Amino acid sequence: MIYADNAATTKMSKRAIEAMLPYFSEGYGNPSSLHSAGQRAAEALVSARKRIASCLNALPREITFTSGGSEADNQALLSAARLGAKQGKRHIVSTAFEHHAVLHSLKRLEEEGFSVTLLPVPENGILSAQAVEEAIRPNTCLVSVMYANNEIGTIQPIAEIGAICKRKGVLFHTDAVQAVGHLPIDVEAQHIDLLSLSAHKFHGPKGVGALYARKGIPLMPLIEGGAQERGKRAGTENIPAIVGMAAALEETCAGMEERSARLKVLRDRLIDGLREIPHSILNGDREKRLPSNVHFCFEGIEGESLLLLLDDRGICASSGSACTSGSLDPSHVLLAIGRPHEIAHGSLRLSLSEETTEEEVDFIVQSVKEVVAYLRGISPVWRDLANGKKQFILS
Amino acid sequence: MIYADNAATTKMSKRAIEAMLPYFSEGYGNPSSLHSAGQRAAEALVSARKRIASCLNALPREITFTSGGSEADNQALLSAARLGAKQGKRHIVSTAFEHHAVLHSLKRLEEEGFSVTLLPVPENGILSAQAVEEAIRPNTCLVSVMYANNEIGTIQPIAEIGAICKRKGVLFHTDAVQAVGHLPIDVEAQHIDLLSLSAHKFHGPKGVGALYARKGIPLMPLIEGGAQERGKRAGTENIPAIVGMAAALEETCAGMEERSARLKVLRDRLIDGLREIPHSILNGDREKRLPSNVHFCFEGIEGESLLLLLDDRGICASSGSACTSGSLDPSHVLLAIGRPHEIAHGSLRLSLSEETTEEEVDFIVQSVKEVVAYLRGISPVWRDLANGKKQFILS
Repeated sequence: MIYADNAATTKMSKRAIEAMLPYFSEGYGNPSSLHSAGQRAAEALVSARKRIASCLNALPREITFTSGGSEADNQALLSAARLGAKQGKRHIVSTAFEHHAVLHSLKRLEEEGFSVTLLPVPENGILSAQAVEEAIRPNTCLVSVMYANNEIGTIQPIAEIGAICKRKGVLFHTDAVQAVGHLPIDVEAQHIDLLSLSAHKFHGPKGVGALYARKGIPLMPLIEGGAQERGKRAGTENIPAIVGMAAALEETCAGMEERSARLKVLRDRLIDGLREIPHSILNGDREKRLPSNVHFCFEGIEGESLLLLLDDRGICASSGSACTSGSLDPSHVLLAIGRPHEIAHGSLRLSLSEETTEEEVDFIVQSVKEVVAYLRGISPVWRDLANGKKQFILS
Repeated sequence: MIYADNAATTKMSKRAIEAMLPYFSEGYGNPSSLHSAGQRAAEALVSARKRIASCLNALPREITFTSGGSEADNQALLSAARLGAKQGKRHIVSTAFEHHAVLHSLKRLEEEGFSVTLLPVPENGILSAQAVEEAIRPNTCLVSVMYANNEIGTIQPIAEIGAICKRKGVLFHTDAVQAVGHLPIDVEAQHIDLLSLSAHKFHGPKGVGALYARKGIPLMPLIEGGAQERGKRAGTENIPAIVGMAAALEETCAGMEERSARLKVLRDRLIDGLREIPHSILNGDREKRLPSNVHFCFEGIEGESLLLLLDDRGICASSGSACTSGSLDPSHVLLAIGRPHEIAHGSLRLSLSEETTEEEVDFIVQSVKEVVAYLRGISPVWRDLANGKKQFILS
């Protein structure tokens, strides 16, 4: 199996699994318990929080553990909005191609009377910091811009946006779920007030994530009950997963530079190979994208068929976000960067990891070429395009 | 180490760990992905849901996976309340000794304009179904009564309460977090509409739970984003934990009868031993309590000191709920059953598991006797009691 869907989820690293295991049947205490079994768990929690904070250049107390990236996004947005409302600020700036955890939270806030500006996204998939600045109003309480897009992998100028927000006195949240492990994060240098991350995107366990919130920003609990996480998130702490996340984050951050350099070579080899397919287009900027991300549209192709035939050849890929794969609607990200519906339907996301090899990349290129050619051969739409009854959109 | 704090959290069973392991680094796909790695995960999800539903006599589609019991409680109450509000019903009946995940959710609902009747709890810790019936008004939308109390372990007449709710057309939620694995659950026979459970209380993994909601009851997502869990809970499904929970639940339900019989013998031996301590009281009904639960108050004792000295002897115990152990307030459960503050502070909860032995029980009895005697010996409060300057409350 060639796993090229690391943006959907990743294989856990050995180190992360090994870090977790002792907490299942040995150090299984509840960290809220006073006895030594509980205190062992509490120490693991303190240590994990410290190590995770350190990877982000944050303080331990600025880290709240959640059940994943979606929960962190929800909590960040609702908390910032509630704080804004107290100050009479009920406007939020975000973008049209955020993850649905952000977009749907914003929709809920709109229903509660907030007004939301969703900035349009240029064709290269990279927002300009200036556009964010221009959208900020006197009553803006929050700017939420993802660090790297989860479908097309484009990297946003978050340090610039952070500086603007700081100057304007507006909170800045970034959904860094796809960025962690691939791009440097420094909440101080990048002026980030709130940041969401999810362990299973960087070879940590599923079911755990974190929300960084700058000291002084009150978080609103989504889950009420016990006083865990300083009252910001009730429920017995998921110690094994939290410990596994800390191990995975340290590992991924330590190896980031070297891995990114290697991944970029593979990514570019993949892009160059797939660009040879006629009537195709690379989505998102060629350079300013995650070193792991390749995203194409092929004219006259239906993405789902492409995936299933690639799967027959042992290649695990995606048409876009796994979170929306049940839906027949075209990707909101591709529509946001201006792809017409019929093109957006023929999308392919390949997301690599450190385990990806050059041989795998070459096999993927060859397979995609063959499968695209095969699908076009049996497609009535392609026939119409080929014999001039319809106009090609992609050159 | 003698672990007698199984109500706080449990050691994972071997079977549950073994069930989880393959999903960390082999079957690690995202169940929303179309490719075979994703589909393998999706199949595991379907199978786990089916098996968990079967243990409760529910339908698979009636099970929504959550990050734990607190999340399930929050979602159950907010969902029922939202549904009630649509029908103009804004009154909820619950009890004074629910878990804080329920009580704090109710408080939030009160702030939103709901009225809440918190039924008082008799001294034996067992609510009467009649009291519930009398509290139901024409505008009551929900009754929420826990199956077994998390501190004193008393078992509530939930089948009777369920039948009343069904007759009156009111939704019935039960927090069964402490009951699962110890008491039979049959959502049909017991007329339960909503039920919360948490895997780490029955030797499953931390960070995962489930909310059963009878078909037709719309759940409100606490976490918005992707369309996972039929739109009721966004976020990549925590497959390893869900699979581990299914294994643990099947295991615990299969062995329940035999284990309960054995635990009752140990529990009663422990109760008989501790009752020999003068000026002590067993909290909660002697018979209608979890087979794993023993809960005492000792006059003239400070619970925290007792725990620390027991810990020195290798005994892990609790004064009450782990979720509130950071707090200096006396237990709301003990106050609810009428214990005065000074008595409530001297509490001890011992919660057993299938690994508990008779030798351990005897060692606990001996240790508690000695530690209580020691602490009373150095306590100024006890001196005042002993020399008649203060009146004893407990005989």
